[in-house]
Amino acid sequence: MTIVATHHSSAALARVLDRLAKDEAGSLERLFRLLAIPSVSTDPSHHEACVAAAEWSAKALRDIGFAARVEPTVGKPMVVAHWRAEDAATKRPHVLFYGHYDVQPPDPLDEWDAPPFAARLVEDPRHGTVIVARGASDDKGQVMTFIEACRAWLAEQGALPVDVSVLIEGEEESGSPSLAPFLAVHGDELKADLALVCDTGQWDEDTPAVTAFLRGLAYSEITVTGPSRDLHSGLYGGPARNPLQVLSQVLSGLHHKDGRVAIPGFYDRVRQPAAGELAAWGSLSFDGAGFLGDVGLSTPAGENGFTILEQLWSRPTAEINGIHGGYGGPGNKTVIPSRATAKLSFRLVPGQDPDTIIAGWHRFVEERLPADAAATFAGEGGSPAVGFDTGAPAFRSATRALEAEWGKPPVIIGCGASIPIVESFRSRLGMDVLLIGFALDDDRIHSSNEKYNLRSFTKGARSWARILAELGHGT
Amino acid sequence: MTIVATHHSSAALARVLDRLAKDEAGSLERLFRLLAIPSVSTDPSHHEACVAAAEWSAKALRDIGFAARVEPTVGKPMVVAHWRAEDAATKRPHVLFYGHYDVQPPDPLDEWDAPPFAARLVEDPRHGTVIVARGASDDKGQVMTFIEACRAWLAEQGALPVDVSVLIEGEEESGSPSLAPFLAVHGDELKADLALVCDTGQWDEDTPAVTAFLRGLAYSEITVTGPSRDLHSGLYGGPARNPLQVLSQVLSGLHHKDGRVAIPGFYDRVRQPAAGELAAWGSLSFDGAGFLGDVGLSTPAGENGFTILEQLWSRPTAEINGIHGGYGGPGNKTVIPSRATAKLSFRLVPGQDPDTIIAGWHRFVEERLPADAAATFAGEGGSPAVGFDTGAPAFRSATRALEAEWGKPPVIIGCGASIPIVESFRSRLGMDVLLIGFALDDDRIHSSNEKYNLRSFTKGARSWARILAELGHGT
Repeated sequence: MTIVATHHSSAALARVLDRLAKDEAGSLERLFRLLAIPSVSTDPSHHEACVAAAEWSAKALRDIGFAARVEPTVGKPMVVAHWRAEDAATKRPHVLFYGHYDVQPPDPLDEWDAPPFAARLVEDPRHGTVIVARGASDDKGQVMTFIEACRAWLAEQGALPVDVSVLIEGEEESGSPSLAPFLAVHGDELKADLALVCDTGQWDEDTPAVTAFLRGLAYSEITVTGPSRDLHSGLYGGPARNPLQVLSQVLSGLHHKDGRVAIPGFYDRVRQPAAGELAAWGSLSFDGAGFLGDVGLSTPAGENGFTILEQLWSRPTAEINGIHGGYGGPGNKTVIPSRATAKLSFRLVPGQDPDTIIAGWHRFVEERLPADAAATFAGEGGSPAVGFDTGAPAFRSATRALEAEWGKPPVIIGCGASIPIVESFRSRLGMDVLLIGFALDDDRIHSSNEKYNLRSFTKGARSWARILAELGHGT
Repeated sequence: MTIVATHHSSAALARVLDRLAKDEAGSLERLFRLLAIPSVSTDPSHHEACVAAAEWSAKALRDIGFAARVEPTVGKPMVVAHWRAEDAATKRPHVLFYGHYDVQPPDPLDEWDAPPFAARLVEDPRHGTVIVARGASDDKGQVMTFIEACRAWLAEQGALPVDVSVLIEGEEESGSPSLAPFLAVHGDELKADLALVCDTGQWDEDTPAVTAFLRGLAYSEITVTGPSRDLHSGLYGGPARNPLQVLSQVLSGLHHKDGRVAIPGFYDRVRQPAAGELAAWGSLSFDGAGFLGDVGLSTPAGENGFTILEQLWSRPTAEINGIHGGYGGPGNKTVIPSRATAKLSFRLVPGQDPDTIIAGWHRFVEERLPADAAATFAGEGGSPAVGFDTGAPAFRSATRALEAEWGKPPVIIGCGASIPIVESFRSRLGMDVLLIGFALDDDRIHSSNEKYNLRSFTKGARSWARILAELGHGT
């Protein structure tokens, strides 16, 4: 079968970009409606909100001409949509766009300047107008850049430059447990020539980026138990085993003094980036002091001997994400608690296998438990790291489109965060993936007062309009 | 001035004990009403309940003939009451009874078999009938043993064998911050020949005890801060300092491998018990395996080279009472939190000064903080340990009374827990203190399903009736 690209004139693209500019108020209104839905996937009490966000997204796609539906899973539903040219005689390029409608929990709520699901525009001295809400950047704002680009193409030209399928999931922030079974059933329907994933960031606010490297993730929750009930530390303190102390001792041993993770075998099979890649990262004018200074830090805390970019893009980590045990209310309560829990996650690089890392973590714990202390593990999972071929034709098409919009070519970057879908698309559906997003490092994703620059939103939509055109010109 | 003791016949005492037996249902009904008031002093949202418990206690004392009032403080109010013989011409012995109406927080609520403030009688295969509620043993049940003994004396004889003042405070479970200023103002009014403190336990359910040694307490809350906001562990993990990791490292260093506390100077000036005292403890048939086994433990976790009783009664400790930081909800959230908090307490022995211990703890932390981590301390305080003269006349009077009730002499024990009032009575008011209580080690004080044996309650009241008689016979 021959793939025939539909050629769109540059005049058509200009009209589409014009349409985006004229409809900015409408685009924002639609985004705000999606942001108002508190679709926190990790919290069971927000299940109905997740369903509502899926339904809203499907309707938004139907409104602009997609055939869209909500597919239930055992977890949060998936949004699946298709737009295909009516002239089915010729095979056109077909892309699958991926994003997620679920968001991180907004807590602690008292650190927000306004309710997290009441989106608003705020004038920021540094960024101009910014959109503030949970999910503004991760990932609802980004998803809407693509949908708005499609809306403009369809409104202006009645067609998209390529055939487009859309998959919007609702479990990205909670480990995507339903994704593998869903792709096993619906893989044939979703498989396209190329996947477009919009869940990453730019290099800086003037420089676009294509992300060619993503760390993987493994996560675990450990509960250390000791006495069969909470004890009075006066009546039992001394002879009684304290689970909080055991947990502190286990966790404090996670790192050597030089920042290396101390779990035996943790670095086995870690593949270092190619020398050329490391050199390219070195030539990026990365402002390490600014990167840390923006979040109140001054000194890289990771492994000795690696730059900040190397630590973020090519080195694995072990992080404690939460510890909870004993009394945490006002005043003091002299208790020896019967249990204490910690949540951990490991960022992985190519070569590391999540299951092997988790198994090593279990052994590490077991070897450190004293008498009268036991450990149980829960909520474990993960996905390996991935890397991309930066010389592929679609990679070069996207590069051209982004350069046209931003006036400079995108930089090829890594990302320290994990997007499990990317590995799934590659390994399960055999699709190449383009990771293009418009988030900025200071968007405060996963934090209070998350924001997305209005410029990220509007130029993001323009960028997608151009990328669709470039892909339509043939890869 | 000569102190003339009022002699009561043994027939009078017999009638008082009879009266207690006949009025058991009424005594329990009154106790249940006090237990129904959720007077959690450490939680500001329970302030009104604390006031209500104080008012209820004052009324209970007025109902039996005391002049009682509630005195406000900047914290929880104090109950102050006096009963003095009408014949004021002769000076009679005067005792000050002390207890507390406040209780520990009942959380975690889901570990209670029934609501913690709905007191109920439960048939227990081991203990017979037990009273289950927060505060049943610590300290409302114990306070009511004394008030019910006074009620019976006054109802039967129209008088108490000695003059009695009562002080019931409401901040014992939260460090008694108002006590020192209150004693400074009301010390003259409260000073008696002897203080009776009912907040301790028996040796076992058949053997009474007088507590001659109490550990002191110092407590502190530490907050470690790092980044200026919560960070995404993918986007920052590696170079960003993680306060949870710093806190784990600080806390894991609190103890040497042999169980000794590692804070420099911690053991300076610790006074060991006399050889005779240690020998007496050694001769007690203490069931260490049972003590630990009752709470699901098997191996003493404290300092090597000390018996369990020595660890509890004569060795200081450092305990982590709570750690809270980062994500603790369902699922996982890959966050590097901006802060993490721990609550600690140190049990002290004679020779250790709380302020010196806290200062050493601060230095210990400061020396261990890496770059980009800071520590702040809050909610600190404490009281030193105390020991008593077991040969004093009042000590011997109490011993006789307890032997008469229980059929065997009380054992002279230590207690690992702290009762700040004891040190205050000794150092500020120059009063000797008798520590007599009827709690049992398995009363689950500070835990879920706290209980007080019905037998502890009834024989406790009888014991006080006898002790008052003995003290009235002259010391």
